[in-house]
Amino acid sequence: MNWTRKDLIAARDLSREEIEHILDQAAHFEEVGEREVKKVPALRGKTLVNLFIEPSTRTRTSFELAAHRLSADVINITATISSITKGETLKDTAKNLQALHADIIVIRHSSAGAARFLADRLAVSVINAGDGAHEHPTQALLDAYTIRKKKGRVAGLNVTILGDILYSRVARSNIHVLTKLGARVTLAGPSTLVPRVFEEMGCRVCYNVEEAIADADVINLLRIQHERQRQTMFPSIGEYASIFGLTKERFARTKPDAMIMHPGPINRGVEIDSDLADCERSVILQQVTHGLAVRMAALYLCGSVQPAAEAGKA
Amino acid sequence: MNWTRKDLIAARDLSREEIEHILDQAAHFEEVGEREVKKVPALRGKTLVNLFIEPSTRTRTSFELAAHRLSADVINITATISSITKGETLKDTAKNLQALHADIIVIRHSSAGAARFLADRLAVSVINAGDGAHEHPTQALLDAYTIRKKKGRVAGLNVTILGDILYSRVARSNIHVLTKLGARVTLAGPSTLVPRVFEEMGCRVCYNVEEAIADADVINLLRIQHERQRQTMFPSIGEYASIFGLTKERFARTKPDAMIMHPGPINRGVEIDSDLADCERSVILQQVTHGLAVRMAALYLCGSVQPAAEAGKA
Amino acid sequence: MNWTRKDLIAARDLSREEIEHILDQAAHFEEVGEREVKKVPALRGKTLVNLFIEPSTRTRTSFELAAHRLSADVINITATISSITKGETLKDTAKNLQALHADIIVIRHSSAGAARFLADRLAVSVINAGDGAHEHPTQALLDAYTIRKKKGRVAGLNVTILGDILYSRVARSNIHVLTKLGARVTLAGPSTLVPRVFEEMGCRVCYNVEEAIADADVINLLRIQHERQRQTMFPSIGEYASIFGLTKERFARTKPDAMIMHPGPINRGVEIDSDLADCERSVILQQVTHGLAVRMAALYLCGSVQPAAEAGKA
Repeated sequence: MNWTRKDLIAARDLSREEIEHILDQAAHFEEVGEREVKKVPALRGKTLVNLFIEPSTRTRTSFELAAHRLSADVINITATISSITKGETLKDTAKNLQALHADIIVIRHSSAGAARFLADRLAVSVINAGDGAHEHPTQALLDAYTIRKKKGRVAGLNVTILGDILYSRVARSNIHVLTKLGARVTLAGPSTLVPRVFEEMGCRVCYNVEEAIADADVINLLRIQHERQRQTMFPSIGEYASIFGLTKERFARTKPDAMIMHPGPINRGVEIDSDLADCERSVILQQVTHGLAVRMAALYLCGSVQPAAEAGKA
Repeated sequence: MNWTRKDLIAARDLSREEIEHILDQAAHFEEVGEREVKKVPALRGKTLVNLFIEPSTRTRTSFELAAHRLSADVINITATISSITKGETLKDTAKNLQALHADIIVIRHSSAGAARFLADRLAVSVINAGDGAHEHPTQALLDAYTIRKKKGRVAGLNVTILGDILYSRVARSNIHVLTKLGARVTLAGPSTLVPRVFEEMGCRVCYNVEEAIADADVINLLRIQHERQRQTMFPSIGEYASIFGLTKERFARTKPDAMIMHPGPINRGVEIDSDLADCERSVILQQVTHGLAVRMAALYLCGSVQPAAEAGKA
Repeated sequence: MNWTRKDLIAARDLSREEIEHILDQAAHFEEVGEREVKKVPALRGKTLVNLFIEPSTRTRTSFELAAHRLSADVINITATISSITKGETLKDTAKNLQALHADIIVIRHSSAGAARFLADRLAVSVINAGDGAHEHPTQALLDAYTIRKKKGRVAGLNVTILGDILYSRVARSNIHVLTKLGARVTLAGPSTLVPRVFEEMGCRVCYNVEEAIADADVINLLRIQHERQRQTMFPSIGEYASIFGLTKERFARTKPDAMIMHPGPINRGVEIDSDLADCERSVILQQVTHGLAVRMAALYLCGSVQPAAEAGKA
């Protein structure tokens, strides 16, 4: 296929064909990571701006490394040092970056819709690195990449996502990618955080962890956000760990080849038993490695679309 | 001409010939920005240090991108993480950067004179990126570049600078550059912030906005600094907007080709009507683009002067 | 010799032969710093991560520049923006960086043992940039490099280290390197901060400054840490300056070729008279320059050891 999107905003927008195209491109780039010199000149002379209005070391680092591998230059802008604090609007900040000939803006923002807002107003490429509780498409793509690589396929697999689904952009993006690729998705967690409305997205909703993971081929655990904990909707950390945490006992009753995933950073002893996080059936660190390849693919594909085709904008 | 300055500290120091030389060099670099690979090897193997003791995302980003375009390496040092907080003197910090073989130090500092202080004590190049209320020469040069490019010349034009002149390094640097290039400069704003003493710099001082902009070819609006607002000298934001802000009504009574400039970041609805900021006669974003070319020129010219010629220093 | 260490954690681990090998390699790289283009492609395509859990502009900048000179890519991660603040363990953070194909992790941490902890658990290279009061090996190596270069040798020289020895990682690393190279080391300072137990490391302990520096070929002054000052063990700053500071009077009674060193940043007027810091017998800024060459050597040697040889780990 011929890739035509300058932006990557939401997994919801992508066709099955587009998703597979990104994953195939990522597979090519994964090989580059095994060479002695791990760089390709694909984006040489281009500039990526990491515009992180909400902090994230891991995702920023992953995009920065992906850009280096593609020989792009990288500028990091974080909220605390940004002129955003001087009262300038997000749009003005972004228009300025475009005026400075940035080629790709990777944005993380605490507000849902921030990435789309920019993509609609800029001629340059915009990649969503997480916008509020909306979407985090590269995370879902790297999760799908990992499943496809380890299991040989995604279609027909049972994938259970466990945790705070309601407020999770990772969950939303995963649901879109996985259902498009033909997986059966089960959502589980406290009933306050896993509303039945998700059934409309084609998922099974289940409030019993044992039942939710019994026939799972993949168990994807979401991080419990200590820092965002909503008292009224959420049990205590200890309560969560005992009712919803992936313990050895629970994991022992799953399919013998069930695979453990987690977007990180993990809370050992909360959503996952510490030994399980490091066991052979955990692919948590491989997800990180695949994230580099998937982000290289996203930057390369979107960054290679001619802005000329978008001349109507700006 | 043969460029001989290792430093760019103040527009006041520059001859008309030097100013034009920088602008001509910038015009050459602007073309580079339109190529597929936007880099030239002019400063390959050289290191630029962005020493920002006062934070500024835009100016830092602009210099960082300019350095990337010239193939230089960039190190960012900001006040909050600097050893300056450990009580070391500015001079010692800078001497250390020189000992680390930095080739160019771009400094922003809240104290007037900081850039000159370093330039006099170091063999390496020093570029002033704003020192207190003193000067911000690359901003004035990019403003002049923009006027020359859009109007075809600077000499003989009427340029009105509107706002807090007294505390503005942008205003000071602009006055020097514009008068040297032969423009007629009018300063306007609240009388507490536009003292008559500026007439000695060859400017017209005017307290009536309508009168100040009536025959202007260029209107340069300065940012109202919410964060530095001085209660005793300054009306409220609302009052400022109504008395001195560039509204549609006021702009409708200017010359039909009057051009709007602003160093950014803009306060929409305060010093400028939001629609005017985005209208066809606003060149605010083009100023940002030109800033990149002008900073490339400044880095290239100063960074190419042999430190040997300065052997007496240090 | 054939360098086989993937990590540089402690001067204590190094043999005399290894120390000399690093210094010889650094001498080679120092020449690179005098070329027009100061880069070599030794680590092209490799990625260095500066993981600074305790802030340090100078050391971070020195490693960043050293990596640029070797054509490596650099990612900076500082504690305040790190996911460490989200409760992830240091080990998980480091495992993630390894999963992102970082090749070298330079770590500064406020806890003694942090660098070793990572080195033992990762296949990638780990360089200790200072861990609590334990070690700071590249500082000691650059100090030895400076002595060897300026004095022609280290063996047989009298080196006096003056200041807060007890809490100083610089002192510990220096003692190991200097004694291995055959210098005679004297430690001096307030008795609460220079316990007699250091005699077991082969040093002379001396509480009288005049006596400690009388026959010194090299006087290495440690920084008085205002910010960490321990009230109960430490005199006031003024008291320290008068009893233990290197004043002109004291320095006049040393050997005529005694050389002054300091790891920086210096407190002028506290541990050293301001004029002495800048005098001809001070090599403080040359230490900074040599630090770049020594860090290039450390990165190059450790970064070139094949992780395959460490396959048992991770």
